[in-house]
Amino acid sequence: MASETFDVSALQDEIDALAAKVTKQGAEVRTLKKNSASDADAIGAAVKVLQELKISQKELLDKMEAATGGKDAFNRQVFDELILRKMFVIPSFEIHGGVKGLFDLGPPACALKAAMIDAWRKHFILTENMLEMECTCLTPEPVLKTSGHVDRFTDLMVKDTETGECFRADKLLEDAIDTLIENSPTMPSEEKEDHLRIQRQADAFTPEEIDELLIKYECVGPSGKPYSPSFPFNLMFKTSIGPEGTSVGYLRPETAQGLFVNFNRLLNYNAQKMPFAAAQIGLGFRNEIAPRGGLLRVREFCMGEIEHFVNPADKSHPSFPSVADKSLVLFGREDQLGSGKTKTITVGEAVKSGLVNNETLAYFMARTQLFMERIGMDPARLRFRQHLETEMAHYACDCWDLEIKSSYGWIECVGHADRACYDLDVHAKATNTAMLATLKLDQPQEKEVAKLKFDRKLLGKTFKGDQRVVSGLLETLAEDWTTFEPIATALESEGKTTVDGFEIEKDMVSWTKTTKKVHEIKFTPSVIEPSFGMGRILYSLLEHSFYQRDADEQRCVMKFNPQVAPQKCAVLPISSNPEANAVVDEIAQSLMESDLATRVDKSTASLGRRYARSDEVGVPFAVTVDFETLADDSVTLRERDSTVQIRLPKSDVTRLIFDIVHSRTTWEEAMKKYPVVTVNEDGEAEKQVGATVIEKTSRGTFSRPAEKI
Amino acid sequence: MASETFDVSALQDEIDALAAKVTKQGAEVRTLKKNSASDADAIGAAVKVLQELKISQKELLDKMEAATGGKDAFNRQVFDELILRKMFVIPSFEIHGGVKGLFDLGPPACALKAAMIDAWRKHFILTENMLEMECTCLTPEPVLKTSGHVDRFTDLMVKDTETGECFRADKLLEDAIDTLIENSPTMPSEEKEDHLRIQRQADAFTPEEIDELLIKYECVGPSGKPYSPSFPFNLMFKTSIGPEGTSVGYLRPETAQGLFVNFNRLLNYNAQKMPFAAAQIGLGFRNEIAPRGGLLRVREFCMGEIEHFVNPADKSHPSFPSVADKSLVLFGREDQLGSGKTKTITVGEAVKSGLVNNETLAYFMARTQLFMERIGMDPARLRFRQHLETEMAHYACDCWDLEIKSSYGWIECVGHADRACYDLDVHAKATNTAMLATLKLDQPQEKEVAKLKFDRKLLGKTFKGDQRVVSGLLETLAEDWTTFEPIATALESEGKTTVDGFEIEKDMVSWTKTTKKVHEIKFTPSVIEPSFGMGRILYSLLEHSFYQRDADEQRCVMKFNPQVAPQKCAVLPISSNPEANAVVDEIAQSLMESDLATRVDKSTASLGRRYARSDEVGVPFAVTVDFETLADDSVTLRERDSTVQIRLPKSDVTRLIFDIVHSRTTWEEAMKKYPVVTVNEDGEAEKQVGATVIEKTSRGTFSRPAEKI
Repeated sequence: MASETFDVSALQDEIDALAAKVTKQGAEVRTLKKNSASDADAIGAAVKVLQELKISQKELLDKMEAATGGKDAFNRQVFDELILRKMFVIPSFEIHGGVKGLFDLGPPACALKAAMIDAWRKHFILTENMLEMECTCLTPEPVLKTSGHVDRFTDLMVKDTETGECFRADKLLEDAIDTLIENSPTMPSEEKEDHLRIQRQADAFTPEEIDELLIKYECVGPSGKPYSPSFPFNLMFKTSIGPEGTSVGYLRPETAQGLFVNFNRLLNYNAQKMPFAAAQIGLGFRNEIAPRGGLLRVREFCMGEIEHFVNPADKSHPSFPSVADKSLVLFGREDQLGSGKTKTITVGEAVKSGLVNNETLAYFMARTQLFMERIGMDPARLRFRQHLETEMAHYACDCWDLEIKSSYGWIECVGHADRACYDLDVHAKATNTAMLATLKLDQPQEKEVAKLKFDRKLLGKTFKGDQRVVSGLLETLAEDWTTFEPIATALESEGKTTVDGFEIEKDMVSWTKTTKKVHEIKFTPSVIEPSFGMGRILYSLLEHSFYQRDADEQRCVMKFNPQVAPQKCAVLPISSNPEANAVVDEIAQSLMESDLATRVDKSTASLGRRYARSDEVGVPFAVTVDFETLADDSVTLRERDSTVQIRLPKSDVTRLIFDIVHSRTTWEEAMKKYPVVTVNEDGEAEKQVGATVIEKTSRGTFSRPAEKI
Repeated sequence: MASETFDVSALQDEIDALAAKVTKQGAEVRTLKKNSASDADAIGAAVKVLQELKISQKELLDKMEAATGGKDAFNRQVFDELILRKMFVIPSFEIHGGVKGLFDLGPPACALKAAMIDAWRKHFILTENMLEMECTCLTPEPVLKTSGHVDRFTDLMVKDTETGECFRADKLLEDAIDTLIENSPTMPSEEKEDHLRIQRQADAFTPEEIDELLIKYECVGPSGKPYSPSFPFNLMFKTSIGPEGTSVGYLRPETAQGLFVNFNRLLNYNAQKMPFAAAQIGLGFRNEIAPRGGLLRVREFCMGEIEHFVNPADKSHPSFPSVADKSLVLFGREDQLGSGKTKTITVGEAVKSGLVNNETLAYFMARTQLFMERIGMDPARLRFRQHLETEMAHYACDCWDLEIKSSYGWIECVGHADRACYDLDVHAKATNTAMLATLKLDQPQEKEVAKLKFDRKLLGKTFKGDQRVVSGLLETLAEDWTTFEPIATALESEGKTTVDGFEIEKDMVSWTKTTKKVHEIKFTPSVIEPSFGMGRILYSLLEHSFYQRDADEQRCVMKFNPQVAPQKCAVLPISSNPEANAVVDEIAQSLMESDLATRVDKSTASLGRRYARSDEVGVPFAVTVDFETLADDSVTLRERDSTVQIRLPKSDVTRLIFDIVHSRTTWEEAMKKYPVVTVNEDGEAEKQVGATVIEKTSRGTFSRPAEKI
């Protein structure tokens, strides 16, 4: 055993080291591709090295799977069958032929999602008094033009000039090269390498380059006609708002913009107090070109986004101490390029060492981890991966993705980004609206300013109607010497300078540098944004909750915790006796009245079969009404994962399950309070394995394992 | 007083009688307009009568308002200001200029909506084990073509041929006639009446008629050019799904279709058991041409829809007895056309008398009423109005709208429609998918069928590849003599007949009428559909919850009940003493840990001002930490509407509020358990008005009203 452990551990080290190399090489390739000076050969060579590394990586991973015997292997086929049969997730509009990338949630997934959203709302919004909003999906174009979305999310497309059918240009090129090589078995390897080099860069060409290449490779549409010139295709769903058809709208690709544009109202609502967070749960839409199966890349999805507005000069968080000791699995930038190993350290250390940029960002990472644990995600399959420099937007300070491991690999499920002042800045500028917060100073501060004197006559002659705009611009800049200084310098050295498109001459304005007492400082808040992909989290939770009982591989179980489980309790009669049925109804009614979703199964199937059915949809508890119940009003309560059963008065059932669901007690406590009984799955008392204690109670005689609990 | 009451009551009778006349005349006008044989004169005359009735009605209503002194008058201006300032509802994308018909919900409305949805889910879905689904908003065209939406929701539009600007044709015509009459003060009254007659029918003309009229009235676009011919404008938002741009999609105008297309999977999930209900909560979208202010007619809205599938031969409901004694305010078809008065009768009577078509429909009406009461809607402002025959779709059996009275009048907020088999039928036919449920018979039944014999040779010669389709069609019809009989009759009398487009001749098939034992009956379920407009309900709840304190009109209160209130408790220190602040934090923390949304207000404003702020957002309870708290750990707890305060140990606060919010106890019980104290709004003990009992308790000395509450 020891030697096997050693082998696996060494192999893991090898895998980790290789993963770091792959990441490093990937970054190298991206840097080369970004740099317009890079030549195609250099890029091609780097891509080739990357591909070879990936092949070695795959070999090592296969070796690892063989070594560990795939014991915990996830049976995708059985899982997928269960997910579809129990209507967790099904393709939308199936009977009409379906639509790629659209999925419906069925009854158990709806309840699970509702519980997850409820938990999210309590964990984030309620606990921190965040300002929740619900903005519309329909978004007018100017908003998304401002945010940059109208110009982003584009892939190059071409059309068949005969039929109008559209294609992704890079995919056509890739396919054409594949076909060429396939059909030319005698092609010299050097020539082949030239083609492959072009193929590897397919997504990096300009429209003009790709147009030339499509002609070079004789790509023609299905109709036999050549393709149209390539053009960018935007991934947002476009529509038209209002009857005129002139007002372009999009379905929002994220929920955040609705919060940014409402910043001033939110700040007022919060009585001007900073920092504060706004949050939104709602739909996002992306017209994906090639949606893959499952809930991981879909065209319509639920998001939960938090925008925490904070003074860029002070990104501390008042509640940081409450999470400072929480340990997280962090996969920092340097580790991705170096050791290839994650670090498990406390949030406090991560901030202290500078690994995570600031307290607020780290605070939310910890809160996200706690949320995932709260809803029952497997902590061993969670990690935070830092964005490489090459991955981040130019304005971002630091980004960490919570990645969840599923059978599809490590999937980004929650982004944590420090987006600096970018979002408020662009909307403020586009709408000419100040979006500022105020820091009241405890003591007034001296501030260096410029005092201006204008030659109004010259200004009027030069700028006419714009005269006041120009003087206003300069006055604003003069409020802070550091912003006015470059202008002063330019006017002195060059005699003129340009401010917002206006050419200012030295004669127009004179200035003196002076100081002024200020009692408050205005600033554009930074935004720290945790952004949750609820659909991906839901899917990951389904995978993490799924297992097959060791004793019987056919028996699938979803181990949802009682807080999020779609149904909280099953109620089953052991026989179809009408008296037993009445008790079942009475218990179910009582559970329902306490808002505990209940599953009644009076079918004639065996008790074992009925337990199995309730296990499949993850019902944590099952109450069984048996012959004793009719005599003494006691019932058995079975816990799903341990299959341990306790015996308790039927009148205690609702309160016990309510308290467990509301985290006011635990199953462990219940096992201490009530006798544990052993019965087989047909409800008959079984021989007790191991030492037992026989208990006589007012509710009857029970056996209980002696070494209990 | 008595005589005033008499006057008002007589006036009310007059108003009701007139309302009936208005309804009757309205129905008359609709019937005339529908009937293509009606001439314009008759319609015009009927419309004129209707308008005169409406004028009289307005006069009576004004008289009534004057008589009752407008005491309970709703102050829209104050209400609107509050709604906007406290961010209940705000226009979307304000800083970018906004978009008509799009609104955002701010923090208190989001919490209120979440609580409302949660209550809805528990009241309907959980209690009745409905199958909840979440289908996509993006919907491919064939689905909505099948449902009829692609051909419905159209208004006639014209374009300015120069600028392309669009207009509603009927509105242009109406405006043109207004202008003509305005500019022709000497126009003879007969001529004027002719124009007005045309104006009244503006929305009833065909495209050709309206085109002619626009020319006749010399309507030209803003550019001076004539309008384009009129064309239908669909109210659905159109988009394109997938990169090709060839797959037309719409944003769903209702959520129901997603449930209908999943009927077979849902039935399987329900183990083939009938009846059952599916439900969905989600967004709907309608590209309204002229959205009015407020939440009553918007372009993006939240709906909750239930589709209850039932055997058309048996529309009883197992839980009907549980609501049979519930009284509802019903405004039946006959009363709308006759007395003009509603009837308050029990659900049981309504079904027994045939007023409501069936048990299931009536059951849901009662459940809707109970839901409205549960979330705190004013029962005096709720009624169920039956659709007139002229209002219903041809396939519908019976429809009742729950109308809620707000300052905009009686507004339809929940539809209850028995839609018969229409929805499943159209999807089954369009997709060639059987959508049937099965009734297992306790005892086999004899059934009359036709036994067929085909002349296969002749069939083959005539229909070639379609041979089997034709024989299959006939075999299906032959399974029930009643469906085959018309064909048999036609073949015998005419020698031929047409079945689904195929011409069948007598020689092709012979038959014998016989009987067969059947053990089950297949049927297309009927759909009974309660459809909730959540946005309208939310808005109505805001109005019903709003009042101004008698003592001080400036003090606005939202009387949300504790179950749905956005925040459950305010916690306020009486002074800014750090010790008091620590207790405030401790209590707030404890409330939050029990998931009770809490509002902490440590501002320096007076206690009265801070109570008023918390009243504005409808916080039902306020805990005040005062000087005594620091001595004996007791706090006061104030109830919002009565402003009664009780004194209790701070450690009891969370449990008490949790229990009230979860309906496990009441404020009345709390007043019995804890001493009532009187303090002024600055937290100082006030002189007790009326007889008091002075209580000495371990928590201090309290005065308590002698006549207990």
